[in-house]
Amino acid sequence: MRLHRLKRLFVGTPLPTAQQRHERLGKATALAVFASDALSSVAYATEEILLVLVLAGTVALSYSLPIAIAIAILIAIVVSSYRQTIRAYPQGGGAYIVSKDNLGTNAGLVAGAALLIDYVLTVAVSVAAGVAALTSAVPFLFRYRVPLCVLAVVGVAVANLRGLRESGQLVAAPTYLFIGSLSVLLVYGGAGALFNFIPEAPYQHHPPGLHGVGLFLILRAFSSGCTALTGVEAVSDGVPAFKPPEAQNARIVLTWLGAILITLFLGITVLAYDFGLVPRADETVVSQLARHVFGGGVFYYVIQAGTMLILLLAANTSFADFPRLSFFLARDRFIPRQFATQGDRLVFSNGIVILGGVATVLLIVFRGDTHALIPLYAVGVFLSFTLSQASMVRRWWRLREEGWWWRSWLNGLGAVVTGFVMLTIAATKFTDGAWIVVLLIPTLVAAFVVIHRHYEEVAQQLSLEGFEPPPPITNTVLVLVGDIHRGVVKAIQYAQTLSPNAKAVFVEIDPERTRRLEEKWGKWGMGVPLIVLSSPYRSLLGPLLEYIDNLQKDPHRMVTIVLPEFIPARWWQLGLHNQTALLIKGAMLFRKNVIVTDVPYHLTH
Amino acid sequence: MRLHRLKRLFVGTPLPTAQQRHERLGKATALAVFASDALSSVAYATEEILLVLVLAGTVALSYSLPIAIAIAILIAIVVSSYRQTIRAYPQGGGAYIVSKDNLGTNAGLVAGAALLIDYVLTVAVSVAAGVAALTSAVPFLFRYRVPLCVLAVVGVAVANLRGLRESGQLVAAPTYLFIGSLSVLLVYGGAGALFNFIPEAPYQHHPPGLHGVGLFLILRAFSSGCTALTGVEAVSDGVPAFKPPEAQNARIVLTWLGAILITLFLGITVLAYDFGLVPRADETVVSQLARHVFGGGVFYYVIQAGTMLILLLAANTSFADFPRLSFFLARDRFIPRQFATQGDRLVFSNGIVILGGVATVLLIVFRGDTHALIPLYAVGVFLSFTLSQASMVRRWWRLREEGWWWRSWLNGLGAVVTGFVMLTIAATKFTDGAWIVVLLIPTLVAAFVVIHRHYEEVAQQLSLEGFEPPPPITNTVLVLVGDIHRGVVKAIQYAQTLSPNAKAVFVEIDPERTRRLEEKWGKWGMGVPLIVLSSPYRSLLGPLLEYIDNLQKDPHRMVTIVLPEFIPARWWQLGLHNQTALLIKGAMLFRKNVIVTDVPYHLTH
Repeated sequence: MRLHRLKRLFVGTPLPTAQQRHERLGKATALAVFASDALSSVAYATEEILLVLVLAGTVALSYSLPIAIAIAILIAIVVSSYRQTIRAYPQGGGAYIVSKDNLGTNAGLVAGAALLIDYVLTVAVSVAAGVAALTSAVPFLFRYRVPLCVLAVVGVAVANLRGLRESGQLVAAPTYLFIGSLSVLLVYGGAGALFNFIPEAPYQHHPPGLHGVGLFLILRAFSSGCTALTGVEAVSDGVPAFKPPEAQNARIVLTWLGAILITLFLGITVLAYDFGLVPRADETVVSQLARHVFGGGVFYYVIQAGTMLILLLAANTSFADFPRLSFFLARDRFIPRQFATQGDRLVFSNGIVILGGVATVLLIVFRGDTHALIPLYAVGVFLSFTLSQASMVRRWWRLREEGWWWRSWLNGLGAVVTGFVMLTIAATKFTDGAWIVVLLIPTLVAAFVVIHRHYEEVAQQLSLEGFEPPPPITNTVLVLVGDIHRGVVKAIQYAQTLSPNAKAVFVEIDPERTRRLEEKWGKWGMGVPLIVLSSPYRSLLGPLLEYIDNLQKDPHRMVTIVLPEFIPARWWQLGLHNQTALLIKGAMLFRKNVIVTDVPYHLTH
Repeated sequence: MRLHRLKRLFVGTPLPTAQQRHERLGKATALAVFASDALSSVAYATEEILLVLVLAGTVALSYSLPIAIAIAILIAIVVSSYRQTIRAYPQGGGAYIVSKDNLGTNAGLVAGAALLIDYVLTVAVSVAAGVAALTSAVPFLFRYRVPLCVLAVVGVAVANLRGLRESGQLVAAPTYLFIGSLSVLLVYGGAGALFNFIPEAPYQHHPPGLHGVGLFLILRAFSSGCTALTGVEAVSDGVPAFKPPEAQNARIVLTWLGAILITLFLGITVLAYDFGLVPRADETVVSQLARHVFGGGVFYYVIQAGTMLILLLAANTSFADFPRLSFFLARDRFIPRQFATQGDRLVFSNGIVILGGVATVLLIVFRGDTHALIPLYAVGVFLSFTLSQASMVRRWWRLREEGWWWRSWLNGLGAVVTGFVMLTIAATKFTDGAWIVVLLIPTLVAAFVVIHRHYEEVAQQLSLEGFEPPPPITNTVLVLVGDIHRGVVKAIQYAQTLSPNAKAVFVEIDPERTRRLEEKWGKWGMGVPLIVLSSPYRSLLGPLLEYIDNLQKDPHRMVTIVLPEFIPARWWQLGLHNQTALLIKGAMLFRKNVIVTDVPYHLTH
C-alpha cells in the first residue's frame, strides 16, 4: 500500500481510456516536434570528426571539410529517399513495419532489433552530450557528470511515466531557440571570419599520434560524423500526427529539416576549422566556438542552454519511440507481452522503465562520455536506414505505381549508400565498441524468434480447437495442520465450505506433540477427521507427498491442500515465522492436479 | 528438484531421529575436544601484544614479559572461577543460561548477544590465523589468503551441515600434535637460548612511531594479549559430555587446560623476546620462532601444520556452539524460531549457515587479516566472563551452600577482574573496531526483546483460551477469467467442485474482447454464469476489488478467487506471461476473508 502511494506521487493518478488524445500538428510545430532528434546531433557530430582526425595531428583537421561535405550529400540522399516512404506509408512507416511488410518477418526483426538499440543509444548519447553542454558552460559540474546523466534519464523517464505528451508549445520553444541561436552564431561568426573582426584561436599544436592520415583514418572520421544523420527518419514514423493533407505536409517538413540540418552541420564544421579549434575533453567544440565568437557573454549561455535542452528533448523522443516499437513487437508476439499493456497513465510503462534502466547502465559504464558511446550508435541507425530503403525498392517493384521506375532508383540509391556507410562504420569502429552492436543484433533477433515460437506453442496447447470437454473430476480437500490455534480453526472451517469430506493431515515429528494435538482435536476439530502421518526423517514434505501420491492413483482426482497461514501486521515479522507454506507451494508447483490454498489469518500487531 | 539433488550431494542423505548419538568423553579426549578453542589463541596472542608495543619502537618490546605475566595471572583467576561454575552447573553452564538464571532475562540476553558475536569472531579470527600459519610456511599463497579463508569457512560449514560429530579420535590428533610440537619447540628453544647454541635473530631496528611507551600503549598491548583467554569457558559449557563423575572430571580437565595454556603462552612470549623477533605482516611470530629454532626443516612444517589444524578445529567448535546457543534463544523465543528446527541431518542447519555467512563476510571485509579482526574479538568474550562470574556470586548469596562465603569471594574476584579487563579493552580498542561490538550488543538485545514481544503477542492472538467457536460461514467462489482456453476450462471445472454456485468474473477493458468471450461462453462455460465488470481506467484490480467489497458487506461471507494460471515448462518462460496471479495475490494479501487459489495448467514445452 505504501509502495502504491509512492507510485502515485511520482506517476500521478490513473487516467481513463477515454482521455487518449490525438493532437494534430501544424507544419511549424511538427518541425519542432520531429526535428529535435535529428538536429541535436549537430551538437556532437563535428566534434566526433575532429576527435578522429586529431589523432594524426593538427594538420589533419583540414580533412574535416571534405568529410562534412560528403555527409551533407548523404543527408540529402537519405532525406529524398524518406520523402518517398512518407508518400507510401501515410499511416506511419517505421523501419520495422516497412521491412516486415516488404522483405518479410526476418528483415523486420533485424530492423526492430537495430531500432531498439538505436533508441537506447539515442537516450544515452543525447543525455551525455546534453550534460557535456552544461559542464562546458559550468566547469565545476564536470566531475559530477555521471550523476547528472543519471538524474536526467530518471527525470525524463518519470515525466514519460506520468504520460507527458509532446505538446507543440512545450517542444517548439527549445527547438527554435536552438535553431535561432545557432543561426546567429553562424552568421555573426561567419561574418567575423570573413571580415576578420574575430581573430583565429591561438594555435594549439597537437602532435600526430600513432596514426598517419590514411584512408582508414578518413573513413573512421566520416563514420563518426555520420551520427549527424541519426533521427532523420523520425518524420516518416509520425505522418499521422500531421494536419491534413498529412503526407504532403510531412514531406515539406522533412525537406526543411534536411536543409536546416545540412546548414547547421556544415556551418559549425567550417567555422570550427576556420577558427582553428581543437577538440578537448572538458569542453565541447560547439561551446568553444560560441565562447570564441561571443567571448563568454550572455549569448554564449543562451547557446549552451539551447543545446542542452534540444539534446534532452532528443532523449525524450526515444521515450515515445521505444515503447511504441515495443508495443508493435509485443503485439506480434516477439517480445514479452507485458510490453503491450498500457499502464494506468495511458503509457506503455514497461517500455519506459526498461529504456531508462538500460540507458542509465550505459551512461554509468561509459562514464557519461559521448565519445565513448558513439561507436555503438550509428551501426543500428544505418542498418535500419538500409532495410527501410531496400523495402521501398521492393515495394515499388511489386506495386508498380506511377513513377515506380525512377522512384525505385532513388530509394535504391539510398539503400546502397546507407548500406555502404553501415559497413564502413561497422568495420572502422569495430574494435571501439561497434562489435557489441554487431553481436547484439543477431542475439536479439534469435531471442525474438524463440519467444515467438513459445507463444505460438502456448496458444496451440491452450487452444479449444478440437478439445473435448474433460471428464468430471473429484476433489479431495486436506487441511495441513501443525498445531491447533485460531488460524487452524479458521482453515478447518474454510475447508468444510469446500467439501463436506474434508480431512485434516498432521505430520508427526515428535509423538508428544501428536498426543497434545489429539487431546484438543475433539473440541476444536469440528468433526473433521485427523490423519497422522509419521516422519522418521523429520521431513514435513516426504510423508505428505507419499500420501498424496496414493490418493492420485485415481487420475481424475484433484487434491486441494488447505494451509493455515498467518499474515503478520508488519513486513519484518514475516521472517519470524516458519515459511512452511512457501516450502509446500514450491514442492507442489510442478505436480499435476494438486492445488495449494492458503487461508490467511491476519495478526493485528 | 535439481536444487534438492545439489543439497544431497553436499549435505548427504537424511538421518532418522533415532540416530542421535550421545558420546561420553574420557579426560584425555575431553581435553582435546575442549582445548582447541582456548589453546589455539596462543598462535596469535603473543604476536598481538608485540604488534602494539612495536609502535613505540623495538625497545618497547621488553614490556611484553610483564604483560604476559599479568595475562597468565588473569588466566589462573578465570580458570579458578570457572571451576566453581562447573560444580554448580553440572548440566552445562553457558553464560546465557547462568546469567538468565541468576541475574534475570536481560542479563541473559546481554550474555547471549555477546556470545553470538564471540562465536562469529572465533570463526573469523581462527580461520584468518590458521591461513596465516599456512601462508607463513608457503609464502606464495599469501596473495590468495582471502579466498583460502573463504574456502576454509565453507569447508567447515559443509562438514557441520553433514552432521560431523566431534569424535574423540578425530580431534585428539591435531590438538596433541599442537601441544606436543609446541612443547618440543619451547624446550629445545629454551635450552638453545640458555646454553647459547641458538643465536639471537639479527637485530631488526624498528623506529618508534607516533607512540611513546605510556600507560595507554601498555593497556592496549595487554588488551590485545587477552585474546589468549578466549575459549577458556568451553569446558564449563560441556560438562554433560564427560564420563561420570562429570563435574569432577571437568574440573580436572579445566585445570590441566589452564596450566598448558599458561605454559605455552608464556613460553612463546619469552622466547620471542629472547631471540629478538619482531612481528611482520607476511609471517606470524610463531612461524618466525619455529623457523629460527629449527631452521625451516621438517619439524618447522610439523609445527605450522599443527597450528593450522588446531585453529581450524577452534573455528569448528563455534559451529557447534553457535547453533546450540541459537537453539536456546529460539526455544525461548528471542530469535526467529527457524533456529530451533533440526535439519534432516540432525543439525541446526540455519545456525550453521548464518554463522558461516557472517564469518565469511567479516573475512572478506577485513581481508583475512587477524590483526584487523582482534579489536572486535575480546570485548564480547570478557563481557560474557563478567556476567557469568557475577551470576555465580549472586547464586552463592542466594543458595548459601557450604563454603559460599569464600566461593563468592573467588567468583567476585573473577567478575571484577574480567569486568575491568572488558572496560580496558573497550576503551583502548574503541576506535580500532571495538565500537562496532559496543554498538552491536545493545542492538542485538533490543532485537531479541522486540522479537520476543512479537511471539508472545502472536501466541495470545492465536490462543484458543476463551475463544468461542466462530459462527458458520458462507463461501462465494469466483473464477477470474481473461479469456477462454484449456486452462480456464480446467479452472472452471475445479471451481465447480468447490461450490455449485461458482461464478466467472471478467473485467472488461476492450468491449470487442467481451463480445468474443461471450460468444464462446455458451459452449465452454459449463453452465457457470459470466459476470462482466467494466473498467474505465484499464485496471484489472479496481473493479474486482469493488465487486468483492460489495459481496463482503456480509461479514460471514468468505470469497474464494480461483485463478487459472499456466506453469511454463522452463523457468525463463515465466517472464513471458503476465504475472496477473502475483498482482492479484499481492492485492488480496492483507484483505480479510478473501482466499486466492491458483489452478495451474502445466505447459509441456
